[in-house]
Order: sequence, then C-alpha cells, then structure tokens
Amino acid sequence: MAKPVERTAVVGAGVIGSGWAARFLGAGLDVAAWDPAPNAESKARAAIDAAWPAMSRRGLASGASPSRLIFHARLEDCVAGADLVQESAPERETLKQDLLADVDVANPTAIIASSTSGLLPTLLSTKMSRPERMLVGHPFNPVYLLPLVELVGGERTASETIDSATAFYKSVGMRPLPVRKEIVGFIADRLMEALWREALWLVNDDVATTEEVDAAVVYGCGLRWSLMGTFLTFHLAGGEGGMRHMLHQFGPALKLPWTRLVAPELTDELIDKVADGCEKQAAGRSIRELEARRDGFLVELLALVQKYWPEAEGLPGRL
Amino acid sequence: MAKPVERTAVVGAGVIGSGWAARFLGAGLDVAAWDPAPNAESKARAAIDAAWPAMSRRGLASGASPSRLIFHARLEDCVAGADLVQESAPERETLKQDLLADVDVANPTAIIASSTSGLLPTLLSTKMSRPERMLVGHPFNPVYLLPLVELVGGERTASETIDSATAFYKSVGMRPLPVRKEIVGFIADRLMEALWREALWLVNDDVATTEEVDAAVVYGCGLRWSLMGTFLTFHLAGGEGGMRHMLHQFGPALKLPWTRLVAPELTDELIDKVADGCEKQAAGRSIRELEARRDGFLVELLALVQKYWPEAEGLPGRL
Repeated sequence: MAKPVERTAVVGAGVIGSGWAARFLGAGLDVAAWDPAPNAESKARAAIDAAWPAMSRRGLASGASPSRLIFHARLEDCVAGADLVQESAPERETLKQDLLADVDVANPTAIIASSTSGLLPTLLSTKMSRPERMLVGHPFNPVYLLPLVELVGGERTASETIDSATAFYKSVGMRPLPVRKEIVGFIADRLMEALWREALWLVNDDVATTEEVDAAVVYGCGLRWSLMGTFLTFHLAGGEGGMRHMLHQFGPALKLPWTRLVAPELTDELIDKVADGCEKQAAGRSIRELEARRDGFLVELLALVQKYWPEAEGLPGRL
Repeated sequence: MAKPVERTAVVGAGVIGSGWAARFLGAGLDVAAWDPAPNAESKARAAIDAAWPAMSRRGLASGASPSRLIFHARLEDCVAGADLVQESAPERETLKQDLLADVDVANPTAIIASSTSGLLPTLLSTKMSRPERMLVGHPFNPVYLLPLVELVGGERTASETIDSATAFYKSVGMRPLPVRKEIVGFIADRLMEALWREALWLVNDDVATTEEVDAAVVYGCGLRWSLMGTFLTFHLAGGEGGMRHMLHQFGPALKLPWTRLVAPELTDELIDKVADGCEKQAAGRSIRELEARRDGFLVELLALVQKYWPEAEGLPGRL
C-alpha cells in the first residue's frame, strides 16, 4: 500500500472536475487544479461555493475549506507534488491519452485516476510510461454528494493501485465499486444508458413526453431503486418465494418486446446466479422483514419528494 | 363523468391484489375480494396487516379499517354492486380475457381495470360485451405506497372511462399517468425492463454480481432518479447549457456499445423534443436553482439510506 493521499490534483475543472475538487476540499485536503478553458477558475469556484452548504449539512472534515483550492496556469505545476491526480477532461480518447501522458511525465509517483464514463483504461494509458499506477475512478454527478465511484483497472494496472485508490476514495466518504471486467460503460452507465436509450425511443416514437417518462420514474421505479437496486426490488415482487419465484413467474416476459433490448436466455445457471445472489443480499432476512424496511423507507422518501418537488402534484399528460 | 366510486372489488388477491385492497381500505372504502388460490384470504389479510403501520404513518382516511374487507367464495358475489373492479390475476392473456368476460357479465356498469404489467387492453377486452368501460390501471409494488398508476385505454375504451378512473385513482392518493399510445410494456415497465435486461446480461457475463449491480444503482443512479427521473437528471449533467449541451456532449456515446440496447438516431427533431421537454419541466428555474434543490434532497436521502440500510456500509466486491 502506497502512502496516504495528502495532496490531490484535479485536471479539468468542469462539472465533474469541480465536483471532485469540492469533495476533496470537504474531506480537508489540499487541491491543485488546472483547466485551460476560459473562466474555468471562476466557474469552478462558483460551483464549489454553491455545493458547500449541502456538503456542510452532510458533514465536513476539520480544516476543510474552499480556500485550500489553488489554480495553476500550467499542468506541470498543478500535478507536481500531488499524491493523487484525478483527470476529468472531455470524453475524447486521444485527448485523454495525451493528457494522461503529460501527467505521467510531470509526476512520476502519483496515482492517476481518470473520470471517464466508459472508455477503457487499457486504451487510455497507452501513451504512459508508468501505466501500472493508472486506473479509472468513475464518479456520478454531483460528485460531492453521490457516494458511488467505479474503479476499473486496465491490463497493465497494478493491483496495489486499485487497493490504494479504494482506501483513498473511502477516506473521502465514497463507496468504491471495483469492476471485475474491463468493459465499456462499466456497470452503472450500462444500466443508465439502457434506461436512457429506451427513454429516448419512447420520446422519439411519441409514446411519452420527457415529463411523462420522468414522472414514471419518480413516482414508480425510482422510489424503490434508491433503497434496493433492481435485483432486491424484484426479490420482493415474487411474494414469499422471492427471486426464484419471480423469475419463474415473469421469466416468459423476457421474451416479450417490452423494450427494444433483447434479454439473455434464462438458463438454469443464470437463474442460480440471480437467485443465489439475492438470497445472499437478503442475509437471512425474510421477505416480510425486507418489506417492512422498504415500507418504512418509502414513507419517509415520499414525504421528501413532496417536500422538494411540490410542483409535481399533478402529473403531466391528459390531467 | 360517472358517479363517484364507493364500492370496490379486487379480483385476485396476491401481492398486487392485496396491495390494491390495502390502498382502497386505507382510503376509507369498502373492498370485496375474490381469489380461488388456497389460503388466499389469510395471506391477503396478513399482507394488509403488515402494510397497515406504514400506511398509517402516511395517513389514513377517516373510517379506514381492514375490517371493511370482505372475501367472497364466488366471483359473481364479489363484483356485484361494485363501482370499480380491479383485476390482478396472473399475467396470462387468455386467463385474464376469460376472467374479464365473467366480470363483464356479473356487473354491467362498473369500471373494470386490469393490473396487467404490459398486456394490451384491446386484446384483454376481446371477450367482453361492454369493452368501453375497460382499461388498464397498472400499479407498482407496494401498491399501498407507490403513487404511480399507468392508465391505458384500448381501441374500444371510452374516454369517460379514462376520466373516471383518473379521478378515482387520484382520490385514493395515486398519481395516474395516462399512456398516449397502446404499446406493450407501457412506459415504466419498458424503462424497468431495459435496465433489468441489461442487469441480467451483466450477471450472465460475470461482469458483476447481483449485489454489485444493486450497489451501483443504490449509490449512483437510483439516488437521483427518485427526485428527477432520467431526463431532468441529465438536464443537470450538461452544466449551464442544460440538456441541449448534454446531448451535444454525450450524443456520440449513443453510438458506443455501452449497453446491448441500440439507441435511436439523434435527429434534430428528437433533440428538440428532448431539450424542449426539459426546459418545460424546469419551468424557468435555472440549472443552479435545480442543483440546489437536488442537493438538499440528496443530503436528506443519503441519511435515509444510511438509516434503513446500515449493512450497506461496505460495498461488495474486492473490498
């Protein structure tokens, strides 16, 4: 395990980069920043100021301050001396490859993490001399509040790099999810993108407006997903039989054209993987116990949605 | 507009049917029930008793009581005299067609709603003499808490039926979403099914376990969806430029294999539909205002998730 991260550098300070800066500052760290775009510094500082009240309510480390952010005019000065460099440049492969190579030259020891939403670390690190310290650390907007960060190593990434990055992201209040296979889109973006593409089809084909799609998510599936994800949610849809019964009951629906996405064959092996996984997640709790917890959560969440989204009283459409 | 609904009947009293019974009872209505399965009544009453504490915290109508549920041995006795019949039988087309035809004979005036997750009302009502009063009223589990109900009329459904059902579902605390086109899977299930099928692929291909998929949803995308849905969430991903800038920036990603679902062509027409829809939803609020609201919501939601899901402290995987 490498030494603890004390100094961080953010390379690119747009929505994602400034979100990283805010999270690192909130954890009481020093942050060096670089972004060649016009007004990047003033925009980033404004974004961090806007984020600070919510971050304060969530809890700041002692000594945390936006004043510990320093912008640099040169990339080399930004990353020199950093223990971890977080790259959040535009999502273009060659641009990121060149930028990561420059960082590699300017700082020979830091962990170098790319915020890419779906590009592969093996490809992004091709121009680096020390690719073993490079990985993907993919966050979710707003970075200063959402806990998830997907960690993806490339073919040449050292396992110590993943371990150090895991420890670091935990230390700034995140929940690192190491991705087992290097696959484009990783895990969360593949799920989001599937829903997003289906949503675009619905709007494209005039089945629904954007408002109607959002209403269907907010008042239906979205409420459950924030507590249980998709598998454990369906584990509770099958009654006492749980996921195994649910797959038996709704398995045939996988053949129906309920989305433009074709489903995998529901083999015995896949059924076992899914049902065993859900039983492990349930950790001995009965369906009834899980339901009671879900219901308690939903009651409070519904009150939250009403508090923060009063305009949504009437749904769109023919109402 | 037909007369207000005073007496309801639930046909089928499994997870969904008993959830409907609980919601109607909570709204202070009388509920007649029928279900030919063994022990259906005792299971349904146990489910309603389990739901009642959460429903009480959410708010019950005066006079609401589980004792206002009466089970009948014969379908005819159950539906006779009801103003609205809610059918929640197993998801098999011919079974539902026959059952709806029997209800049609036994009660000539009630609104008849099917809870089907995705079958088409035009097909479900083929054996009815009075299909004009039949529609789909598709709820989400747990029915007694989740507000969304999708309303789908068939080719022979009268517009008054949709109007009456809309008024009724609103009166029991729901948010009816009329679906513009009769399409299999409707809106929410197409979105859920797209995400579900992609999730099954990820588990099938050993990219992730069910736990890892759920963690990616709970700590990433799921947190945002419960407030904003998918379109307004992405409206905030593009910085001050909103959805139009986001489509410009991430549009090319629609061509990437980030899911097994192929995306629609991002034509100018589709861009206009999506961006105009988001601007309408934003209703004059700036991106910064929407961000501040989202952040306040997320701070409270994160505390809720921690309260209800303490086991989730450590994410699964290599940690």
